[in-house]
Amino acid sequence: MAPLSQAPISRFPVPALSDMPEDIRERLLAVQEKSGFIPNVFLVLAHRPGEFRAFFAYHDELMDKPSNLTKAEREMIVVATSNANQCQYCVIAHGAILRIRAKNPLIADQIAINYRKADITDRQKAMLDFAMKVAFEAFAIGEEDYTVLARHRFDGEDAWDIAAIASFFGMSNRMANATSMRPNDEFYMLGRVK
Amino acid sequence: MAPLSQAPISRFPVPALSDMPEDIRERLLAVQEKSGFIPNVFLVLAHRPGEFRAFFAYHDELMDKPSNLTKAEREMIVVATSNANQCQYCVIAHGAILRIRAKNPLIADQIAINYRKADITDRQKAMLDFAMKVAFEAFAIGEEDYTVLARHRFDGEDAWDIAAIASFFGMSNRMANATSMRPNDEFYMLGRVK
Amino acid sequence: MAPLSQAPISRFPVPALSDMPEDIRERLLAVQEKSGFIPNVFLVLAHRPGEFRAFFAYHDELMDKPSNLTKAEREMIVVATSNANQCQYCVIAHGAILRIRAKNPLIADQIAINYRKADITDRQKAMLDFAMKVAFEAFAIGEEDYTVLARHRFDGEDAWDIAAIASFFGMSNRMANATSMRPNDEFYMLGRVK
Amino acid sequence: MAPLSQAPISRFPVPALSDMPEDIRERLLAVQEKSGFIPNVFLVLAHRPGEFRAFFAYHDELMDKPSNLTKAEREMIVVATSNANQCQYCVIAHGAILRIRAKNPLIADQIAINYRKADITDRQKAMLDFAMKVAFEAFAIGEEDYTVLARHRFDGEDAWDIAAIASFFGMSNRMANATSMRPNDEFYMLGRVK
Amino acid sequence: MAPLSQAPISRFPVPALSDMPEDIRERLLAVQEKSGFIPNVFLVLAHRPGEFRAFFAYHDELMDKPSNLTKAEREMIVVATSNANQCQYCVIAHGAILRIRAKNPLIADQIAINYRKADITDRQKAMLDFAMKVAFEAFAIGEEDYTVLARHRFDGEDAWDIAAIASFFGMSNRMANATSMRPNDEFYMLGRVK
Amino acid sequence: MAPLSQAPISRFPVPALSDMPEDIRERLLAVQEKSGFIPNVFLVLAHRPGEFRAFFAYHDELMDKPSNLTKAEREMIVVATSNANQCQYCVIAHGAILRIRAKNPLIADQIAINYRKADITDRQKAMLDFAMKVAFEAFAIGEEDYTVLARHRFDGEDAWDIAAIASFFGMSNRMANATSMRPNDEFYMLGRVK
Repeated sequence: MAPLSQAPISRFPVPALSDMPEDIRERLLAVQEKSGFIPNVFLVLAHRPGEFRAFFAYHDELMDKPSNLTKAEREMIVVATSNANQCQYCVIAHGAILRIRAKNPLIADQIAINYRKADITDRQKAMLDFAMKVAFEAFAIGEEDYTVLARHRFDGEDAWDIAAIASFFGMSNRMANATSMRPNDEFYMLGRVK
Repeated sequence: MAPLSQAPISRFPVPALSDMPEDIRERLLAVQEKSGFIPNVFLVLAHRPGEFRAFFAYHDELMDKPSNLTKAEREMIVVATSNANQCQYCVIAHGAILRIRAKNPLIADQIAINYRKADITDRQKAMLDFAMKVAFEAFAIGEEDYTVLARHRFDGEDAWDIAAIASFFGMSNRMANATSMRPNDEFYMLGRVK
Repeated sequence: MAPLSQAPISRFPVPALSDMPEDIRERLLAVQEKSGFIPNVFLVLAHRPGEFRAFFAYHDELMDKPSNLTKAEREMIVVATSNANQCQYCVIAHGAILRIRAKNPLIADQIAINYRKADITDRQKAMLDFAMKVAFEAFAIGEEDYTVLARHRFDGEDAWDIAAIASFFGMSNRMANATSMRPNDEFYMLGRVK
Repeated sequence: MAPLSQAPISRFPVPALSDMPEDIRERLLAVQEKSGFIPNVFLVLAHRPGEFRAFFAYHDELMDKPSNLTKAEREMIVVATSNANQCQYCVIAHGAILRIRAKNPLIADQIAINYRKADITDRQKAMLDFAMKVAFEAFAIGEEDYTVLARHRFDGEDAWDIAAIASFFGMSNRMANATSMRPNDEFYMLGRVK
Repeated sequence: MAPLSQAPISRFPVPALSDMPEDIRERLLAVQEKSGFIPNVFLVLAHRPGEFRAFFAYHDELMDKPSNLTKAEREMIVVATSNANQCQYCVIAHGAILRIRAKNPLIADQIAINYRKADITDRQKAMLDFAMKVAFEAFAIGEEDYTVLARHRFDGEDAWDIAAIASFFGMSNRMANATSMRPNDEFYMLGRVK
Repeated sequence: MAPLSQAPISRFPVPALSDMPEDIRERLLAVQEKSGFIPNVFLVLAHRPGEFRAFFAYHDELMDKPSNLTKAEREMIVVATSNANQCQYCVIAHGAILRIRAKNPLIADQIAINYRKADITDRQKAMLDFAMKVAFEAFAIGEEDYTVLARHRFDGEDAWDIAAIASFFGMSNRMANATSMRPNDEFYMLGRVK
């Protein structure tokens, strides 16, 4: 095997920063400045600038804007559905973000493997039950599912948020697997030490 | 049951045209002028303007820009994977577009139900085999799948296109099922008469 | 691909009308006179006259005799289970019959793709829930399923009808897929224009 | 639990012999004379005389008429697919017939549980591979499956026979489960002692 | 095929009795004296003496020690889960033991094929529902499952017993399939004649 | 939720060290001395001393004795199959051991989520393909699977080892889920810092 530092991060071509459109390069440099490294999803998707812009616009709408779901809860949805989709990149990268957002070094691994046994509230388990149903049996979603959510004080807008995050990362999981997107080594340790 | 004309097109609120942001209203009016009606996906997603913009930016990148895949072939991917995901809106709306793009009134139903028995080329069946693997077993995609595609003269960029369309509509299928998005009555007959 | 008019309707030999046993030829001519064409299932199964006779005797018992289920409801069962079995012939041919029987040009596509979102009554959805369970998990059918049906005013005889139709077309779906039975072009448009 | 002799053989009404149509009663009496008992499938289906006649006409075409498949091989198909469908009646009744036809007291249990490990030829395993694909993935059957059969000296007519038996008993399995059809106690021991 | 008496009982080497460690040979001789033959599982696992000892120590803990579950009930768990795992050895060998323990020649076949239709109590069906969930969806087991068991008068210790037997034989089923472990001919008839 | 330090490690009673049989207490104290803590699996299974002894005797045979599989490779099997079984305890505890044995802080998460994309050799991927087939489709294992292993220089004894580890941890995964066995907090960080 190649030394890790040389391991490819995508089975598709990855453009050099200098070859990227200005707006994309700037976003990457901003992320790098903030995080200390550029998460590979930015580099891998930069192969298709138009898709890159739409992907991150969508991502930011769902993950960064105000919502009744906390940012940690949104990451829980990503982590639970992404492991069920066997997506290495998303579990490892968003597991790191979840640990940081929840200020809990254990929670990401627990939720990835079996959220039913994780240190989360019953309300959060209901949120993840719905997210998993969207991810794997969306065709069977009906009003009774919204009723269960309502019983846990998730209103319609919250339900849309859960569904949209599970749906968006279902797309992301598929692209990450199809491109063999490699998680950055940095993610593995993030948030593990309080 | 409500008369069809009164059947709801979403289980979520649908904004009036007059309440939509300017750019979204303009896009809807342009679509209406071109098609004679506003496909419900535009109205349903307008409930969330930010997501609307990202969704259609992504959609247009994948479905409208130049690609080695013909526009009919891209619609084939949508139709085959959407029926497997049991998404009424996408099969009916994109089935209509496929009939028009392929100038073939039979092909959408054939592909939706069982593309292996459809009037398409072996190359197109290989394209759909890959799309279905992305949709249902993306975790198992490997170089051998790209080799099969290459044998059918699909290069890496074509493979990305197939994967991205299958992934994007996997998201769309889930949102359509979660919102109970109703296909417009107009779609059912489009392209059925040459 | 072969021009459609020359596309084979079966991967098995199809006898000429003149080579068929008298009773079978007569049935085919009667169907042709009534419908304007001979549905391919008659031609494909005529390869085995004994099986043909038994198949249609069974079919007629279930689909044509008096029953509390309307003829449209019986076709709903066929269409929903046949799409789940990915049977092109049955969805397209019986979709046409359903549109005609229900005098509803939209209903067949809706039910085929996702009956839970179709313009049908809750009672009809309960009927299709039971039919799908017979088609895919008959081993788990128990008295509680009959109780649910009873709550929707389906008695035991109605339940037998639903089960028998789902079972019979499960057989038909498998034979249609194994023979690559091709739906007649005529079916696609039938019942689409009121 | 009720003493076995009083255990119901169907969750539906079972007509008395004296109430059955003449032709059906005669068939039952003939079977009784030959076998020493009336297999319950005859009694259960007699609730619907028209379906009874079609069912047994079909059954006899597939299981009794001349074919390149031996009668034991046809029963192997029934036993393997019926256990996969969890159909108590068909595994126990046709297991008995298989033991008798194959003059082998072990083979039915072996095939029911895992035909891949049974004392049968590779050719028979290929036959059962095809039968299981018809039973569970008929939508994916293609010419390559017929090629594998041909390599084992099964021609097209043999393939039809295998497909038709797997399809017919798929129907029978579903009806037996829906009716809670009880196998006669006599079947369990038949053919177990050479 | 090899004559049955020469059919291999494992795809791995089987040691001669004289080559086995003393303690293992003694156990086998004791079993042979008691049963009249040596069940093949003893011979097949003797290939690995250390694993043999642990396997049977575990087995004896679960199947022979005092428990609120009768010995017949424990065998029911083995038979139901082993057929679902398609394990020829375990269904045939433990089916024999179940017939003997339950003094019922019919029950093993009934439970193997579809325990929901077997001549057992509702309490035993609840036991098997739990066992099947452990065998196939252990990740989803929650307190509600223990509550259902409690309603049928199974306490926590009983639940552990059920789970442990289903889990242990899940292991055994996998090893039997991987080794192509052949059931002894003697098992097929045991307990069939009262 | 309870503070983590008070979170239960099992839904079953956990005996105090002082109440355990001498041999079990000694094993636990020895582990504690070596590792600095007592892995919860020891405490949870101590509820059943006889099963405890058999479980660990089996475990030690498979995981500690000489084998052509390295200790890291054996842990890879545990981690890959345990995540597929959604077993929190086994993925987290054995993930830690794998990181230590492989001296690789990244490998456990990679293998757990999708071993096909992990930094391991093709030979190790073939090992895990076989292990996953044992875990989920053991009934379909045949000589062709052993041939693939042989092509990667795994002989019969190696194959047994792989199968036995996948089978044993399949049991362990089920018991851990049924008991809600909680991984010790210590495992999460072990082996993450070289």
